[in-house]
Amino acid sequence: MSYGVIATWRMAYQAVLNNIGTLANESDAGQTLEAVISEVENFPNYISVGYGGLPNQDGKVQLDGAFMDGSTFEIGAVAGMENVKNPISVAKKLSSERFNSFLVGKGAQSYASLNGFKIETLLTEGSNARYQERINHVKTGEITPYDGHDTIGVVVLDPKGHMVAGTSSSGLFMKKDGRIGDSALPGSGFYVDSDSGGATATGLGEDLMKGILSYEIVRKMEAGLLPMEAAQQTLTDFERKLLKKAGKVGAMSLICMNKNGEWGVATNVDFTFVVATEKQKPTIYIAKQNDAGQTKVIEPSQQWVDDFLLHQKNRLE
Amino acid sequence: MSYGVIATWRMAYQAVLNNIGTLANESDAGQTLEAVISEVENFPNYISVGYGGLPNQDGKVQLDGAFMDGSTFEIGAVAGMENVKNPISVAKKLSSERFNSFLVGKGAQSYASLNGFKIETLLTEGSNARYQERINHVKTGEITPYDGHDTIGVVVLDPKGHMVAGTSSSGLFMKKDGRIGDSALPGSGFYVDSDSGGATATGLGEDLMKGILSYEIVRKMEAGLLPMEAAQQTLTDFERKLLKKAGKVGAMSLICMNKNGEWGVATNVDFTFVVATEKQKPTIYIAKQNDAGQTKVIEPSQQWVDDFLLHQKNRLE
Repeated sequence: MSYGVIATWRMAYQAVLNNIGTLANESDAGQTLEAVISEVENFPNYISVGYGGLPNQDGKVQLDGAFMDGSTFEIGAVAGMENVKNPISVAKKLSSERFNSFLVGKGAQSYASLNGFKIETLLTEGSNARYQERINHVKTGEITPYDGHDTIGVVVLDPKGHMVAGTSSSGLFMKKDGRIGDSALPGSGFYVDSDSGGATATGLGEDLMKGILSYEIVRKMEAGLLPMEAAQQTLTDFERKLLKKAGKVGAMSLICMNKNGEWGVATNVDFTFVVATEKQKPTIYIAKQNDAGQTKVIEPSQQWVDDFLLHQKNRLE
Repeated sequence: MSYGVIATWRMAYQAVLNNIGTLANESDAGQTLEAVISEVENFPNYISVGYGGLPNQDGKVQLDGAFMDGSTFEIGAVAGMENVKNPISVAKKLSSERFNSFLVGKGAQSYASLNGFKIETLLTEGSNARYQERINHVKTGEITPYDGHDTIGVVVLDPKGHMVAGTSSSGLFMKKDGRIGDSALPGSGFYVDSDSGGATATGLGEDLMKGILSYEIVRKMEAGLLPMEAAQQTLTDFERKLLKKAGKVGAMSLICMNKNGEWGVATNVDFTFVVATEKQKPTIYIAKQNDAGQTKVIEPSQQWVDDFLLHQKNRLE
C-alpha cells in the first residue's frame, strides 16, 4: 500500500523527515501525525504554533488544535487553551471521547491537566521579543495588526490505508481573548475520510470558515477528482463567490492527499509546504498563485533549502 | 418575492407567530431571525436555550450561538459564553467584525460587555430544579447523562431574497466545562447562501460535526435538489457512512429552506419544527423516521397543538 504525509509550511520539514521512516515501517497514521505536529509545537522558534507561539492582544498564549480519524470519524478539538504545549495531543486524546470531545478555554486546560498533560508557561523570551517588535511594526504601519497566521496542518496516509488529519495554531497575530479561527473547526480547518482522502487549510480563519473548504476538497476527491483538481476547483470557486459577496478575500492555502497518496495544493498567497510519500523523499515546495488565478508549484533551489535548514535554529519563523 | 421562516422544535412556534407579520412587511431577514431566537432565549421555561438554560456539569450555564448572513457570508459565533442571555445577538453583532468574529469563554463575555450587553445570572429556580431532578434521574438510571440537547436553529428568507441562519443552545445536558457542540460551528450547525438556501441542525453535536451536514444540504440545494430531497439524502448518506465507520449514530434532525421559500426536513428521532411562509400560516409539524429510514412529516391534531399552547407557560420544555 501507499503511504504519505503532506504538511503546511516549511517549518514542518524536519519533523516530516524525522518521522517518515517509522511511517514506512507500518507506524499508525495517528502516531505519525501526532509525532510530526508535536515536534513543530515543541520547537520554540516557530512562533505561530505551540511552545513559543505568539501571545494574543492581552499577552496570553491561547492555542487551537484538532485531530480527526478518517476511519472512525472520531474528532477531538481544543480552542483558546492556555498553558499546555501540545494541543494536538490533547485533541487526539479527546477524539476518543464519545461526548465532550471539543473543549474550549479553561475546560480544555482542565481536561488536559486531569489527563496528565503538563501545565506550563508557553511564552518564551524569543516570542515575547517578537511580539513587542510586531507591536512596534503595527504602530509604524509596517504591518497591519492581523498579519500572520501560520497553522501547522497535516494529513497522513499509512501503509494500511488509515488516514488522519490534524492542526495546531496559536492563531491570528494580535487576536482578541477567546478568538477561534478555522484550525479547530471540522470541515473548515481539516477533514479526512480514509475512503477518499484528507485536507487541511491555513490562512485567514475568519474567511476559511465561510467556505468549509477542507470538507469540500475531500468531497470532491470522493467524487473522483484528483487532489490537485479538487484543491484548485475548491479555491477558485470559493474565491469567486466570496469576492462577489464580501468584496474581499483573505489569505487561503489548502493542501490535500487522497487514499492513494497523491497530493494537491491551492493557494492565493505565497505558501510553502512539505510532502513525503513512498515514491518521494521529504521535499519542501513553494506554491504561488499566477495571474490567471491558478496555483503553480515550484521546487526551490538547493541553496534556498540549505539556507532555511542552516538558519532555522537561530531564526524565528 | 417569497418569504419564510423555518425553525427547530415547537418551542419556536409563538416567536415565529409573533414575527411573521413584520417579515411579510419587508422586515430584514436578520432582524426577524434575531427577534425569533431572542424571544425563545428569553423565555425561562425553555431549558435548552438562553435564560433558564440548563447548567453544565459544574452548575454553570454556558451558551453557544451563531449567526450567518447568506448574502455577505459574514459569520459571528460565540461558545461557552456565561452570563449573557442572548448569544444570538452577540453572534449577530460579531458577524460585522472582519477579524475575531468567533469568540469563546471569557473573551466572548468581555466582547458582549464592551458592546453593551447586560451581564446577568442565567440560572433560574426552574432550571436549577430541573437540573437537580435530572441528576437524580441519571442516578436512578431513568436517563443517561447526555440525554437532551434541543438547539433552536432558524433559517429566514425575507421578501427581498436575503437569507440568514442562526442558532442558540445551552448544549448537551451535563456537558463538561468548555464543551462545544455543533451549534456554533459553521457548516455543521448552520449554513446559508442567499443564492441557494439555508440549513440548520439539532441533535448530538459530537456526531453532527463529523458530517458537516448543514453545508452539505445547502450544497445539494445549490446543485438543484429540492429541500426535502437535499435534507433526506444528506441524512441517509451520512447515517450509513457513520454507522459503518463508528458503529453508532446519535440523534440528528435537519431543517432547510431554499431561496424560493420551499422547505425540507430529515430526522432519525421524533422531532418537531415550525414553518411559516407567505403561502402557509405558522404551523407546528412532527417529523419521524419510518422503518425504511425515511422522514415522515405529520401535522399534529388541533388538540395536540392546543394542549402545547395551553401548558407551555407552566411547563419546562
